[in-house]
Amino acid sequence: MPDTTLLEMFESPTDTPFVIEHVAEEFTSLCPMTGHPDFGTVTVRFCPKPRSEGGTCVELKSLKLYLQSFRSEGIFYEAVTNQIRDDLAKAMDPVWMQIVTNWLGRGGIRSIVRASHGDVPREYVGV
Amino acid sequence: MPDTTLLEMFESPTDTPFVIEHVAEEFTSLCPMTGHPDFGTVTVRFCPKPRSEGGTCVELKSLKLYLQSFRSEGIFYEAVTNQIRDDLAKAMDPVWMQIVTNWLGRGGIRSIVRASHGDVPREYVGV
Amino acid sequence: MPDTTLLEMFESPTDTPFVIEHVAEEFTSLCPMTGHPDFGTVTVRFCPKPRSEGGTCVELKSLKLYLQSFRSEGIFYEAVTNQIRDDLAKAMDPVWMQIVTNWLGRGGIRSIVRASHGDVPREYVGV
Amino acid sequence: MPDTTLLEMFESPTDTPFVIEHVAEEFTSLCPMTGHPDFGTVTVRFCPKPRSEGGTCVELKSLKLYLQSFRSEGIFYEAVTNQIRDDLAKAMDPVWMQIVTNWLGRGGIRSIVRASHGDVPREYVGV
Amino acid sequence: MPDTTLLEMFESPTDTPFVIEHVAEEFTSLCPMTGHPDFGTVTVRFCPKPRSEGGTCVELKSLKLYLQSFRSEGIFYEAVTNQIRDDLAKAMDPVWMQIVTNWLGRGGIRSIVRASHGDVPREYVGV
Amino acid sequence: MPDTTLLEMFESPTDTPFVIEHVAEEFTSLCPMTGHPDFGTVTVRFCPKPRSEGGTCVELKSLKLYLQSFRSEGIFYEAVTNQIRDDLAKAMDPVWMQIVTNWLGRGGIRSIVRASHGDVPREYVGV
Amino acid sequence: MPDTTLLEMFESPTDTPFVIEHVAEEFTSLCPMTGHPDFGTVTVRFCPKPRSEGGTCVELKSLKLYLQSFRSEGIFYEAVTNQIRDDLAKAMDPVWMQIVTNWLGRGGIRSIVRASHGDVPREYVGV
Amino acid sequence: MPDTTLLEMFESPTDTPFVIEHVAEEFTSLCPMTGHPDFGTVTVRFCPKPRSEGGTCVELKSLKLYLQSFRSEGIFYEAVTNQIRDDLAKAMDPVWMQIVTNWLGRGGIRSIVRASHGDVPREYVGV
Amino acid sequence: MPDTTLLEMFESPTDTPFVIEHVAEEFTSLCPMTGHPDFGTVTVRFCPKPRSEGGTCVELKSLKLYLQSFRSEGIFYEAVTNQIRDDLAKAMDPVWMQIVTNWLGRGGIRSIVRASHGDVPREYVGV
Amino acid sequence: MPDTTLLEMFESPTDTPFVIEHVAEEFTSLCPMTGHPDFGTVTVRFCPKPRSEGGTCVELKSLKLYLQSFRSEGIFYEAVTNQIRDDLAKAMDPVWMQIVTNWLGRGGIRSIVRASHGDVPREYVGV
Repeated sequence: MPDTTLLEMFESPTDTPFVIEHVAEEFTSLCPMTGHPDFGTVTVRFCPKPRSEGGTCVELKSLKLYLQSFRSEGIFYEAVTNQIRDDLAKAMDPVWMQIVTNWLGRGGIRSIVRASHGDVPREYVGV
Repeated sequence: MPDTTLLEMFESPTDTPFVIEHVAEEFTSLCPMTGHPDFGTVTVRFCPKPRSEGGTCVELKSLKLYLQSFRSEGIFYEAVTNQIRDDLAKAMDPVWMQIVTNWLGRGGIRSIVRASHGDVPREYVGV
Repeated sequence: MPDTTLLEMFESPTDTPFVIEHVAEEFTSLCPMTGHPDFGTVTVRFCPKPRSEGGTCVELKSLKLYLQSFRSEGIFYEAVTNQIRDDLAKAMDPVWMQIVTNWLGRGGIRSIVRASHGDVPREYVGV
Repeated sequence: MPDTTLLEMFESPTDTPFVIEHVAEEFTSLCPMTGHPDFGTVTVRFCPKPRSEGGTCVELKSLKLYLQSFRSEGIFYEAVTNQIRDDLAKAMDPVWMQIVTNWLGRGGIRSIVRASHGDVPREYVGV
Repeated sequence: MPDTTLLEMFESPTDTPFVIEHVAEEFTSLCPMTGHPDFGTVTVRFCPKPRSEGGTCVELKSLKLYLQSFRSEGIFYEAVTNQIRDDLAKAMDPVWMQIVTNWLGRGGIRSIVRASHGDVPREYVGV
Repeated sequence: MPDTTLLEMFESPTDTPFVIEHVAEEFTSLCPMTGHPDFGTVTVRFCPKPRSEGGTCVELKSLKLYLQSFRSEGIFYEAVTNQIRDDLAKAMDPVWMQIVTNWLGRGGIRSIVRASHGDVPREYVGV
Repeated sequence: MPDTTLLEMFESPTDTPFVIEHVAEEFTSLCPMTGHPDFGTVTVRFCPKPRSEGGTCVELKSLKLYLQSFRSEGIFYEAVTNQIRDDLAKAMDPVWMQIVTNWLGRGGIRSIVRASHGDVPREYVGV
Repeated sequence: MPDTTLLEMFESPTDTPFVIEHVAEEFTSLCPMTGHPDFGTVTVRFCPKPRSEGGTCVELKSLKLYLQSFRSEGIFYEAVTNQIRDDLAKAMDPVWMQIVTNWLGRGGIRSIVRASHGDVPREYVGV
Repeated sequence: MPDTTLLEMFESPTDTPFVIEHVAEEFTSLCPMTGHPDFGTVTVRFCPKPRSEGGTCVELKSLKLYLQSFRSEGIFYEAVTNQIRDDLAKAMDPVWMQIVTNWLGRGGIRSIVRASHGDVPREYVGV
Repeated sequence: MPDTTLLEMFESPTDTPFVIEHVAEEFTSLCPMTGHPDFGTVTVRFCPKPRSEGGTCVELKSLKLYLQSFRSEGIFYEAVTNQIRDDLAKAMDPVWMQIVTNWLGRGGIRSIVRASHGDVPREYVGV
C-alpha cells in the first residue's frame, strides 16, 4: 500500500527559490479493474519554501521507496497522480509542485496525467 | 458509425484541477471522396470539472471502442476532429478539452488538426 | 507557373474555431539566379472563419496541385513564402494563417522563412 | 477478404539482378479472437527474375489495394505474414522474397514476423 | 512464481520456416539480494518447427501472463534469461530460439543478457 | 531527359582499392502513369579501378547535373535505379558499384530499390 | 579578416512583416589564445523592414562569403557573435535580428551565444 | 574542494545585452551519504552587465577548472546547484544567471535542479 | 588505484552458453599527461564457461566498485581498456570477453577502444 | 600543408590485438577547384602490431595537429582520404587501418570515402 511514512525530508539548502525535478522511470502499480500491471514514469517537480521558512526537499531514496509502495496497489492512473501530489504536497508544503505520470500503452492508447499544487514559480517559466 | 453510446465516464477523483491526455496511435477512418483508408493518431486532452461539481473522466476502454467506431466511416480529417471534440465535450462537460489529430501522409502532405473547447487551464500553460 | 485557379475550397465543418496544418514535404522550385532546383518543405497553418460567416478550408489535393505548379518557376525562398501566403489568404480569407518554408542546404546554409496573416488564434497559443 | 486478383505485375526492366523493397506503414486487420483491430507495417522485399526469363515486379497501387483487402479480415499475425508471402511469391515467382510484419503493441508486447522465399541474393548481403 | 502452466501454444500456420519475435517492454522481477524491483525488456525470438512436424507458436496473451508471473520473484538477470529460454524451449520445441533481456540501469550500469537454443535459421541471417 | 554527356570523370588518385559514396538527397522525376512528381534520395557507391589500370571517379558537380536531368522524365522507380547504375557503370567501369534509391511515400507505401554491378569489395564488407 | 564589403542585400519582396532564418553549419574561426580552430553553427534570424520603407534581405551567397572571411581570424565566441550581429544589423537595418552561435565542445564544454537587435516580431512569438 | 579562486573573468565585449550558455557534460562529485560518485551535466546561462558598467564573462578554461574542483567533494545535487549559482553570481555580478544540473540515474530516478539569479532577459524569452 | 580484489564472481547459472553485457556509462579516470579527468562508457561483454566447468559471472556491484577504483588513476585510453580486459579475463576465465571503451571528446576527437579475449561465441554472431 | 612530422607515436601497451578508433568531427580543407572550404568528419580505425613486434599507436594531440595541417590545403575528398591512410599507415605500420571521411553536403550531395590498409582484424568482425 502507498506508504507516506517512508517519505523523508531534508532542509532546503537555501532561501533563494529554486526548482527540483525527479524523474522515476520505473513505476508500476496494478489496474483496479483487471489486476494487470500498469507501467509508467513519474515526474515530481517542486519549488521548496525558503530554508528560513522551514522549506524542505524530499530525500531521493525515501522517494524511491514511497513510489515502490504502489507496486501491489490496484489504482487508476488519475488517482495515482492525485495521490502522489497530495502526499508529497502534505509532506513538503512546497511553494509549487507538479506531478506528471506518463503511462505506457494499453490497447493502443498511451496516457499522461498532470496534477499541480500552487503557482508555477518565476524560475520555471519560459525556459 | 461513430457511436457515442460506447462512451463511459467515471467520477473525477478530486476537486483539484488536473489534466489528462490520452494518445490513441491506432486510429483509422475512410476518405469520403475515394473510400481509401486514412490512418492517424488522435490525442484527447482535458481538464475535468471538480468532483464536487460533477466532474467526470472518460473511461479508457470505452474511449478505445468509441474511436474504433470510426473504422468504416467516410469522413474528412477536419470533421473527425470536430466530431470527437463535440462528442467528448458533450459527454464529459469538461473545463477544457483539446483534440489533436495527426494524419499520415497522403500524396506527400501530412496534416494536423487541432480543435478545442473552453480555456487552457492554468496547470497546462508554460510547461 | 504558380496557378491559383488550381485551389479549391470546401466549407468549414463548424462555427467553433479550430486550426489546420498541412505539411508538404515534397516542394521544389528553381533558383532564379542559377536555374538549379531548390527543395524544401512547405507548412500551411490556418484557422478558418466560422462556417456561418462563410469560412472555408483548402481541399488537400488542390493544395498539392497548386504547390506542384511552382516546379518550373524561378523564384527566391522569400518570394515563394510570401506568394503562398498571399494566394492562400486571398483564396480562404482565414482568421489566421502562417506559412513556413524550410529549405535544404545550399553551400552549407539551410534557410527557414515564416510569413503570417492575421493574429495567432487562442487555440494555438501555448500548446 | 484478402483478394489476390487485385495484384497486378509489370515486366522487370532488366536482366541484371536487383532488389526492390516496399514498406506499407498503414496496414490493419482484425484479431480473430477478439475482433479488435490490429495495426502494423508490412515490408515486402524481393529480387525479380531476369526480364528475359519472364521476371515481373508488383505494381505499387495494386499492392496497396491488395493490402487494404485485409482490413476486415480476422487473421493472426503469423498467418497474415505467411499468406502475403505465399500470395506474392505465387504472383511474381521471384528469385527471392522476404515479408516482414511489424505490429504495434498489444498488452505491452510488440511483435515482428519474418517469412521468406528463396535465397537471399548476393546483391542484398552485407549492405 | 514463474508459472509455465500459463503458457499456451497454437499450431504453426505453415511448413515453411519463418521467424517470430515478441518484445515485452514491461517486465519486472525482484533483486534476490536487495528485494528492490528490477525493470527490463524481454525479447523472445524463435523459428517454429514445420506444422507437419508438430511445430507450435506461443500464444501472445499466455506469454504475457507467464512473464507477469515473475513479478514477485527474487531472481538474478542471468537466471531470468536462462529460465525463460528453458521454459519456452521446452514448451515449444522450436528449431531456434533466442531470449534477450535488456535491464534498465542500476548504480549506473545497464545490462543485456542473451541466451539461445538451436541454430540461427537461414531466414534470420544477414537481414 | 537523362543526359550521360553531362557526366565527367577524373583519374582515381591511387592504385589502392577504396570506396566512394555520394548521397544525393534532392532527386525528383515524374511518375510515368500519373505525371505527378516523385521525390527520393539517390545513393551512389563505387570502388574505382586502380589508377594504373585507368580507374576513374565521377566528378561531383557533373553527377549533380546528370541527376538533375531526370527532373522532367516520366520513369518508374525500378527503371531510374537500373538506368543510373547502367549509365555510371558504363562511364566509370568501376570494380564495384551499387545504386540505392529511397523514395518518399506514395499512398502510404515507401520504396527502396537497390541495383549493383560487380562484386562487393573487401574494403566494404563487415564495416 | 571579417569583411563586410562581401555582404550584398536585395530588396525585401513585401511590405508585410515576415521572418527569415539562415543556419550556417560550417563556421570556423581561430581561438585568439591558442590559435587552435573553433568550429560552430551560426544562425541568423531577422525580420526586414517593409519594402516600401527600404527593407532589405541579405543575399545568401554573400552571407556565406562573409562568414568564410572569419576563417583565419583569432576571435572569442562572444566577440564573433556580437560582431556578426553588428555587421548585419548595420547592413540591413532590420526590424529585428537575432544571432545564435553554437560551438562544438572544447575541454568538455559546449557553448551557445545569443545576441539580438530590436524587438522580437509578433510573427515569431509563440510558434 | 570547490575553489572559486580558479575562476577568471574577462571584460564583456559589448554594451548591448546578450546571453551566453556553457554546457559542461563531464561533471562529477561524490554523494555525501554513500561516497559513491555522482555524474551529471552542468549548464551555466548568463547575461553580463554592459561593458561600460563593468560587465564580465567567465573565462572558459577557468570555468572548467572550477567545475573540476568538485571532483572529490561530498555534496548533494541541490547544494551543488545553489553553490555554483552563488559562486558565479558573486564572481560576475551578471544581469541574469541560471544554473541547471542534470544528473544521471541513481536507483532508477534521474534528477534536474534549476537555480537562477536576477530576471530572465528580454533576449532570452520566447526563443 | 585499480583494485581487482574488489571483483566478486558468482557461479554461472547454466551449462548452456549465453552472453552477458554490462554497460557502465559513468566511468572516469585521469589523463596521465595533463591530470585532467577523462570520461567515458565502459562496456563489458562475456560468455562464461559452463557451470559444470567452473564458469563464473562478475557480480554487478563489485564490477561497479572495481570500475570506480580507476577514478584517481592517471592512465591512457588504450591502457584502461587492456587492463580491464586482462583483470576481468583473469578473474572469470570466460570463453569470450570483449571490452569497449567509448570516450567523450577531447580537442574535438572522440575515441573508441576495443579489446577482446577468446573467440566470438556462436550465440553472438549475426544478431 | 599536411605535415606528417607532427605525428607522434607511443608504444602499444600490449601484445594482444586490439582496435582503436578516433573520430575527429572538426576537419576542414579547401576545394581545389573553387577554393571554398570543405567540412567533414575523419574517422581513423587501426589495430596496432603487438608491442613485442614494435607496435605503436598515434598520440591523440599529434593526430589533431596533423589533421589541422590540412586547413589551408586545396585537396579533393578522395585524395584527403588516401593521403591520411598513407601517412598514418607509414607512421604506424599497423596490422590494419581504415580511414573514413564523411563530408557535409555540397549542392545537395553528401559524400563518404573509405580507404583501408591490411586485413580487418578478427576483433572487429561481426560486432
